[in-house]
Amino acid sequence: MAEEAAVRAQADTVRRLKQDNADPDEIAKEVAKLLEMKAQLGEDEGKHKFVLKTPKGTRDYGPKQMAIRERVFNAIISCFKRHGAEVIDTPVFELKETLTGKYGEDSKLIYDLKDQGGELLSLRYDLTVPFARYLAMNKITNIKRYHIAKVYRRDNPAMTRGRYREFYQCDFDIAGQFDPMIPDAECLKIVHEILSDLQLGDFVIKVNDRRILDGMFAVCGVPDSKFRTICSSVDKLDKVPWEEVRSEMVGEKGLSPEAADRIGEYVQLHGGLDLIERLLQDPKLSQNKLAKEGLGDMKLLFEYLTLFGITEKISFDLSLARGLDYYTGVIFEAVLLHQENEHVEESVSVGSVAGGGRYDGLVGMFDPKGRKVPCVGVSIGIERIFSILEQRLEASEEKIRTTETQVLVASAQKKLLEERLKLISELWNAGIKAEMLYKKNPKLLNQLQYCEDTGIPLVAIVGEQELKDGVIRLRIVATREEVNVPRESLVEEIRIRTSQC
Amino acid sequence: MAEEAAVRAQADTVRRLKQDNADPDEIAKEVAKLLEMKAQLGEDEGKHKFVLKTPKGTRDYGPKQMAIRERVFNAIISCFKRHGAEVIDTPVFELKETLTGKYGEDSKLIYDLKDQGGELLSLRYDLTVPFARYLAMNKITNIKRYHIAKVYRRDNPAMTRGRYREFYQCDFDIAGQFDPMIPDAECLKIVHEILSDLQLGDFVIKVNDRRILDGMFAVCGVPDSKFRTICSSVDKLDKVPWEEVRSEMVGEKGLSPEAADRIGEYVQLHGGLDLIERLLQDPKLSQNKLAKEGLGDMKLLFEYLTLFGITEKISFDLSLARGLDYYTGVIFEAVLLHQENEHVEESVSVGSVAGGGRYDGLVGMFDPKGRKVPCVGVSIGIERIFSILEQRLEASEEKIRTTETQVLVASAQKKLLEERLKLISELWNAGIKAEMLYKKNPKLLNQLQYCEDTGIPLVAIVGEQELKDGVIRLRIVATREEVNVPRESLVEEIRIRTSQC
Repeated sequence: MAEEAAVRAQADTVRRLKQDNADPDEIAKEVAKLLEMKAQLGEDEGKHKFVLKTPKGTRDYGPKQMAIRERVFNAIISCFKRHGAEVIDTPVFELKETLTGKYGEDSKLIYDLKDQGGELLSLRYDLTVPFARYLAMNKITNIKRYHIAKVYRRDNPAMTRGRYREFYQCDFDIAGQFDPMIPDAECLKIVHEILSDLQLGDFVIKVNDRRILDGMFAVCGVPDSKFRTICSSVDKLDKVPWEEVRSEMVGEKGLSPEAADRIGEYVQLHGGLDLIERLLQDPKLSQNKLAKEGLGDMKLLFEYLTLFGITEKISFDLSLARGLDYYTGVIFEAVLLHQENEHVEESVSVGSVAGGGRYDGLVGMFDPKGRKVPCVGVSIGIERIFSILEQRLEASEEKIRTTETQVLVASAQKKLLEERLKLISELWNAGIKAEMLYKKNPKLLNQLQYCEDTGIPLVAIVGEQELKDGVIRLRIVATREEVNVPRESLVEEIRIRTSQC
Repeated sequence: MAEEAAVRAQADTVRRLKQDNADPDEIAKEVAKLLEMKAQLGEDEGKHKFVLKTPKGTRDYGPKQMAIRERVFNAIISCFKRHGAEVIDTPVFELKETLTGKYGEDSKLIYDLKDQGGELLSLRYDLTVPFARYLAMNKITNIKRYHIAKVYRRDNPAMTRGRYREFYQCDFDIAGQFDPMIPDAECLKIVHEILSDLQLGDFVIKVNDRRILDGMFAVCGVPDSKFRTICSSVDKLDKVPWEEVRSEMVGEKGLSPEAADRIGEYVQLHGGLDLIERLLQDPKLSQNKLAKEGLGDMKLLFEYLTLFGITEKISFDLSLARGLDYYTGVIFEAVLLHQENEHVEESVSVGSVAGGGRYDGLVGMFDPKGRKVPCVGVSIGIERIFSILEQRLEASEEKIRTTETQVLVASAQKKLLEERLKLISELWNAGIKAEMLYKKNPKLLNQLQYCEDTGIPLVAIVGEQELKDGVIRLRIVATREEVNVPRESLVEEIRIRTSQC
């Protein structure tokens, strides 16, 4: 029973971590391991028990969550449409080779499908690579589109912070050969509009450029071959202090201490147009072609952002690196500043809520002749935004409606099912949103209670006397007021009354 | 080179089938086999070539397709909301065991994910089983919800007829213990509303009941153990003539010729209330408890449908069987009648566009204590509806817009990029949907042409003189009329003019 001993040892590990108040992610990881070991043991013993759950790192959205989700989607979609974007959709899986070689180290997080004969498939990891495949396949050289869909990553989930294995991305991209920085500036304007609109609290959009980073690495004495790996180290600066990053560069990655220190000076810089001007005068950087190009474009970008009136929230930040391999120019990332939310006691740390950049080479990787289509785009990290809004709503008193029903068709006496069916059918045919209880003889009190519970504002009550008189009794739930309405004007009356509330 | 010989033989098979005008599905299947054999051969030889495509049986939706798709979704969603439904969402994959034992023979069509350590997962095959899992897991006994999402089946695709491996389902279900046939009648009303609303041409909704089928099998002398398999044979009656179905029953499935002939008499019956009454008097059927129950409820259903005013499109049809295992009561299926479409030369055969039924036992399969939650629901087969609308639109002259842009911000002279950026930013901030060309100095003609191409109705033209005068020149694309509008009333003017067109 070596396996059982292993399970006990793992249970001890979990207990110890909890006692030590260890990082919740680490605890979650060890708990998951424990559960899998237990499940394994269960199966091996043939005592398999059916588990009623969603897969690890995923969740259902109930009606309340969906109501929040739709609010957020509406804000985002109306922004994308305001900027003239078309919309596309692609399959949830791609040929495995379509995703190969696009994500660097993160490729290990891709979900593969089982080989059941036929093609080898993988679930999409983001919406950018499928977009580039779509452009190359359809020979499109010019499009502004958005795409809202789920993507999949076999990452360590941290659900309370909005980190899932299945999650939505909301992408807006501009593809085409244009004058520099005009589409790039629009992407930043979009992030600014969406985050302002959603009222998530104060935020800052960090901006940098891969060419500035590469130029900086060159003048600091990083060998060409180490650019990418040193770049990943820099990418960690939003989570760990410089000293740790430095020791990773020198210790693990074999960079000279002098080069690391030179990088250290640069990556602590952040500012606006003034900093760009200063770096353009920097004796070393200004000699590097790439850095000069990047800084020139950054200056142009800030000029456009000034015209848009949004520079206040933009920070040119030399420590911003972004993980993905495919970026070639401007990169950016929006982070929420400390959540000052009166409703939420313990604020959620959510980090980045939007990110993106320029990727001029990706489409060319798919084109048989390597033809490039320059692209720039932004991805809104919707799940983290949901987490914040969900917790905020839970903490508040606000009651959220999950249906749009305008009226409940009810009856005052027994034996009126047929009359209710006739009336509700008339209402549906007239486009009124109407419900009734699926009972032959429901009590009036229960029908009224249903309206209270679900927020239905009106009740159309069928009664014997009213039927004789050709009227329907209309009750306003909030005020308990009741009026008799001639049947032929009921639809109009409901429309007027529900457009008011 | 045995493999190469096999490829040549397969190529011959394909050629022969094409010459013989064989069933397109069969040809497609053999072509797919051929391509896979070729690909295999290519890989084995190390001459692997990257293929730029979407996986078999899937497709991208471009902006035009998306515009059609959104129209259809809006019609369906507004119907579901009119009936007071909430909305939920579930993950695209489930634990493999959640799907096990729910789909009978069709289980072989389920996509499994690769075992990458951790849980064994499968892509969802429909939305009904995840819904039942959701109810059991959250102990919900009472809900009316819709769910619109993609499902996955490793079926033989027939794309021109709208049969894909990845496709949308639009499901509406009512769960809960209610008085008989009231929710069932509402599901049929919903199908009627949606199909009428979408103007797909004439249609009929076939209705039957699993209890009537089972009762019929019993009185015809089918042994209990053969109910399900004989039911599958009956299910084929919409595609093949009775003679073939009969010989399958007798030949392959070992049913006695007498029993088959007795079934043959029943399954050719279809009608309305009159037929129900006749069968309630049928000396054999009326003696069978299940059949009597089913017929009684069918009568009640028709009474409710009469109150809804939709019996004209409903046919009680004893040949309707439906494939899935989980149905326990009423079943139904909507089919479009021969497409009489003036625009489309060759009409598409689409078959069933909606289907559903009652499944009272499915939730209990997930509940640890087997507690049942009665459910009835309908699924709209959206892809087939898309196929029809897409072909109809292609054949028509109608130009479909893929953006909602109200105004293009243009310039009459060079060096006005800054002014365009300032103006468009004002418009975006005021909620106007606005675009501009991403060029420093675009020609006015190109800017006007862009509006013609994309259907943008207005152009806001920035010019040197106009800037001095504090006005913007507003051009109405359709009429070529131009008016000078004071800058401060531009937003209002655009709003008025675009609410008119």
